[in-house]
Amino acid sequence: MKIMGTIAVKMPNLTILSREEAAYRSLIEAAKLPNLTITSKLEECEIVFGEPTLIRASLAAMPHLKWAQSTWAGVEPLLDPSLKRDYILSNARGVFGGLMSEFVFGYLLAHERRIIRRAEAQKSKVWDRSLTGTLRGKTIGLLGAGSIGAEVARTAKFFGMSVRAYTRISETCQYIDRYFHGNDLLNFAQGLDYLVSILPNTKETRKLIDANMLHELPRHAVLINVGRGSAVEEAALMEALQHNKIAAAVLDVFEQEPLPKDHPFWTTPNLIMTFHSSAPSFPEDVAKVFIENYHRYIENQNPLYQVDFEQGY
Amino acid sequence: MKIMGTIAVKMPNLTILSREEAAYRSLIEAAKLPNLTITSKLEECEIVFGEPTLIRASLAAMPHLKWAQSTWAGVEPLLDPSLKRDYILSNARGVFGGLMSEFVFGYLLAHERRIIRRAEAQKSKVWDRSLTGTLRGKTIGLLGAGSIGAEVARTAKFFGMSVRAYTRISETCQYIDRYFHGNDLLNFAQGLDYLVSILPNTKETRKLIDANMLHELPRHAVLINVGRGSAVEEAALMEALQHNKIAAAVLDVFEQEPLPKDHPFWTTPNLIMTFHSSAPSFPEDVAKVFIENYHRYIENQNPLYQVDFEQGY
Repeated sequence: MKIMGTIAVKMPNLTILSREEAAYRSLIEAAKLPNLTITSKLEECEIVFGEPTLIRASLAAMPHLKWAQSTWAGVEPLLDPSLKRDYILSNARGVFGGLMSEFVFGYLLAHERRIIRRAEAQKSKVWDRSLTGTLRGKTIGLLGAGSIGAEVARTAKFFGMSVRAYTRISETCQYIDRYFHGNDLLNFAQGLDYLVSILPNTKETRKLIDANMLHELPRHAVLINVGRGSAVEEAALMEALQHNKIAAAVLDVFEQEPLPKDHPFWTTPNLIMTFHSSAPSFPEDVAKVFIENYHRYIENQNPLYQVDFEQGY
Repeated sequence: MKIMGTIAVKMPNLTILSREEAAYRSLIEAAKLPNLTITSKLEECEIVFGEPTLIRASLAAMPHLKWAQSTWAGVEPLLDPSLKRDYILSNARGVFGGLMSEFVFGYLLAHERRIIRRAEAQKSKVWDRSLTGTLRGKTIGLLGAGSIGAEVARTAKFFGMSVRAYTRISETCQYIDRYFHGNDLLNFAQGLDYLVSILPNTKETRKLIDANMLHELPRHAVLINVGRGSAVEEAALMEALQHNKIAAAVLDVFEQEPLPKDHPFWTTPNLIMTFHSSAPSFPEDVAKVFIENYHRYIENQNPLYQVDFEQGY
């Protein structure tokens, strides 16, 4: 019989708070993580893994919480300053790059190849041989260039595009041809064929895409927002679309979700909505992040993708 | 004064027969090709550059024709055995890989991300958060793996797909994981998520995609035909779509083009038509092929992308 003596061995209790709880439970059980117990008793849990909205609702009921792993990239629900912050928060940043990039390039190619318009021509039995374009040689500008932006940039280079990025300070991605910072936002926007926002919701990003910025875009430009709705000044975007100042916008995110039925976006011309679906959280992907971070946790290392409560990402 | 003596210097006359004649003329003039004269006199022309349909109509009027460069990849109009074949024929195979690949992946991503369906949900003001899929891990099968197939394969690997190809004999593309030949067609089809035909119209490819082959595909499979319409048995495809034996078909090409107004394809469910637009011939791209081949021609080399009249490509 082995006596543990005073050596502290972590025997953490995990609670899963997710719409995909069953899938996550079986993936985590299959990983046979050392010393881990899965419990539904919030008052005993030291680790919580799940959607930020569900974690927020139970936050006060978890007095022993030390680490929360979000299944999403965005963790706004947990950033409210009135909530407790005496735990480590990590998000699922690393897994959405490929999915986001598929989304962005699905819509870029759909725009170039007129996929939605051709579907309408077909309904009218029109043999529509109107000319289509190509991504090759076009310029894409990324607002935000973290792990998702890097993957979008890599895909853009694959398709032969030029890539610009506007970032706070970072200039680390090999797939970005030219960086812009600070007061250089309007120069960044000038002449872009595609403007893609991957910005989180922070004080600095609120309404960054305003009338001035939209004014710098060419008339054929397309805006794609897969970050947060707060980055776009909605009235300015509607005005730009109504007067054909830009060609189209693809919005996955909005100030208010679901979008209210009487919101003018529903009937704004050339505005495509995708209902916050750009990067579905596949349990197989997100469970891997939890599993890797659990190993770091029991070795007293900081998790990957730790969120800074002040910066908000 | 230099005497040329008996040295034969080629001074070829070129006729351009294209809907884009003005664009091609200015691109070729800008290239300042040695000894070339552009003429509209068919009886004097030694080289013709243009659309196969237009070349065919003038073929009998060009007694001195030595070389025809097609602006298209497909050259069926010139393969009719009743037409003369005492000249070298080259097509524009090399330039369409990128464009075709953008087309194919535009529709693959549109399928995974439900781009057309979400556009319909938006019209009905439905906040459609239905789950979407990813290309990563899916399997694509290519019928034909020439220069276009190789580019589709390269893009498929970029998106993390498995790639199979069914070819006559070639096994030369590094982006293809597994090759199939001869009697192995049904094994090739088994379990494919996406089947992409890039086949030319030849005796061997006629109706290759028949009821037996469609039967091997899973119910969620999607067929994309960017080769020639003759490769598909149209009645079998309609039957498969009507009974949900496959999920969808994207057809760029048809047995008869434009498709007759009374053709049942117009109303077949889950059939998307794109009206032979998958690879537009951009003059800047195609002129480069002509220019490179012209240099080869005056140096008595065979052109790139020479067509074998018997094989048909």
